[in-house]
Amino acid sequence: MIIIGELINASRKAIKAAIEAGDGAAIQQVARDEADNGAAFIDVNAGIFVDREPEYLKWLVETVQAVVDAPCAIDSPDPKAIEAALAVHKGTAMINSISLEKDRWENLLPIVAGTDLKIIALCMSDEGMPETVDDRMKIADKLVNGLLQKDIPIENIFVDPLVQPLSVNKDFGMQFLNSIEAITSEFKGIHTACGLSNISYGLPGRKFINRAFMIQAIAKGLDGAIMNPLDQGMAAAIALAEALAGRDDFCMHYLKAFRAGLFEA
Amino acid sequence: MIIIGELINASRKAIKAAIEAGDGAAIQQVARDEADNGAAFIDVNAGIFVDREPEYLKWLVETVQAVVDAPCAIDSPDPKAIEAALAVHKGTAMINSISLEKDRWENLLPIVAGTDLKIIALCMSDEGMPETVDDRMKIADKLVNGLLQKDIPIENIFVDPLVQPLSVNKDFGMQFLNSIEAITSEFKGIHTACGLSNISYGLPGRKFINRAFMIQAIAKGLDGAIMNPLDQGMAAAIALAEALAGRDDFCMHYLKAFRAGLFEA
Repeated sequence: MIIIGELINASRKAIKAAIEAGDGAAIQQVARDEADNGAAFIDVNAGIFVDREPEYLKWLVETVQAVVDAPCAIDSPDPKAIEAALAVHKGTAMINSISLEKDRWENLLPIVAGTDLKIIALCMSDEGMPETVDDRMKIADKLVNGLLQKDIPIENIFVDPLVQPLSVNKDFGMQFLNSIEAITSEFKGIHTACGLSNISYGLPGRKFINRAFMIQAIAKGLDGAIMNPLDQGMAAAIALAEALAGRDDFCMHYLKAFRAGLFEA
Repeated sequence: MIIIGELINASRKAIKAAIEAGDGAAIQQVARDEADNGAAFIDVNAGIFVDREPEYLKWLVETVQAVVDAPCAIDSPDPKAIEAALAVHKGTAMINSISLEKDRWENLLPIVAGTDLKIIALCMSDEGMPETVDDRMKIADKLVNGLLQKDIPIENIFVDPLVQPLSVNKDFGMQFLNSIEAITSEFKGIHTACGLSNISYGLPGRKFINRAFMIQAIAKGLDGAIMNPLDQGMAAAIALAEALAGRDDFCMHYLKAFRAGLFEA
């Protein structure tokens, strides 16, 4: 599972305060915790600071990369902010995210074209949120083929089919899961990556629903997740699901997680 | 989920003792507990008593049906024992199980032909345990078509693709899961039913593995399970997985289970 650590996001109170105070140590502690708990990418988001987003995003990248080796996921739709962050980023960053919405597509495509950046591609268009597998596949086709035409290698594309809440429609879980299966089967070598917690919006016991949904999504082929890497219950669910999905030689990772007490919580 | 309660099995010490002592009340308590916890069928197995199996199986059916409305799953390969049990069974029983093994197939086919019995059909032949999806589909084709030719309605057939341990081969989980998907897609209207716990044989933390595997199997289409209906952790896993799989209108069953405290354990 390719984990994109989601904690350094200015919509979280502590992160907003740390950014405003220029408290690099606070940011670095979160980055270290995420990397130590398996994050392959450290997402950085300063979207709430409309005017100062480029400046803050650049600062976040420098601050994070001073202490961890993992690359950042630059989480912004603003080309100016992304370019400021990329200018200081070491190694190969991830862009979170492009979509088929006209503005976003036209603004970001020139930035990613011909690069080796990793790219999250949201199944979203100006026609709104997709609901069915077909809706998502139509958007995914255009997104993936559009990126391939700009010389993005398929293994650098992470399609996010977008999770919608089960409380709105009982079929939204399976529509998402079957989209994961369809995308990984249609585009060989591609990745998928999503935040899953929207599935449980409006229901009680959200953490149980989120974990079970992760377990199902992994069986359907999901190999990336935008999540809190410090969530031990979710880490346990991933260890189980990956062993069952045949992605864990000799169940070594599961056994290590079990012995480390991950299943006692 | 169609739950087949597995507890009344003479290979369990307490059940063996109750049968030998003719302690009907002990058997009836287990049957009541299983039915109260959602078992649609009460499995009865007296296989360890080689000579007295027909007599004991008949007694088990009578004893169970005196206190619960659920039909029994007659768990035996022996035509004499099955016929003795069916002779006293009220309503429509389940036969657990037929397979493509020559003796079993030839002995049991005449008993089930043309009836409205529910039938568990094991993906097992004289060539041994199947390992891949292809192995299982070859056997399933013969089993299902053989039963259909004997006028068994497809909705009365429960195919069991047989779970093999992950500790033996890391792909055994996905081979099973993909078999469930292939069977439900190939034979419209058919059911599947299995005992899942073999998946975790030889590994620590078996209950966690079994629950996660159930959650994945439901996403792949599993709709029957031979299990302990009193296992609250498994019941919680099933409630979650079925809601996520779109089988729970308005998440009513999940909400009821959540409010009943099923997720607190």
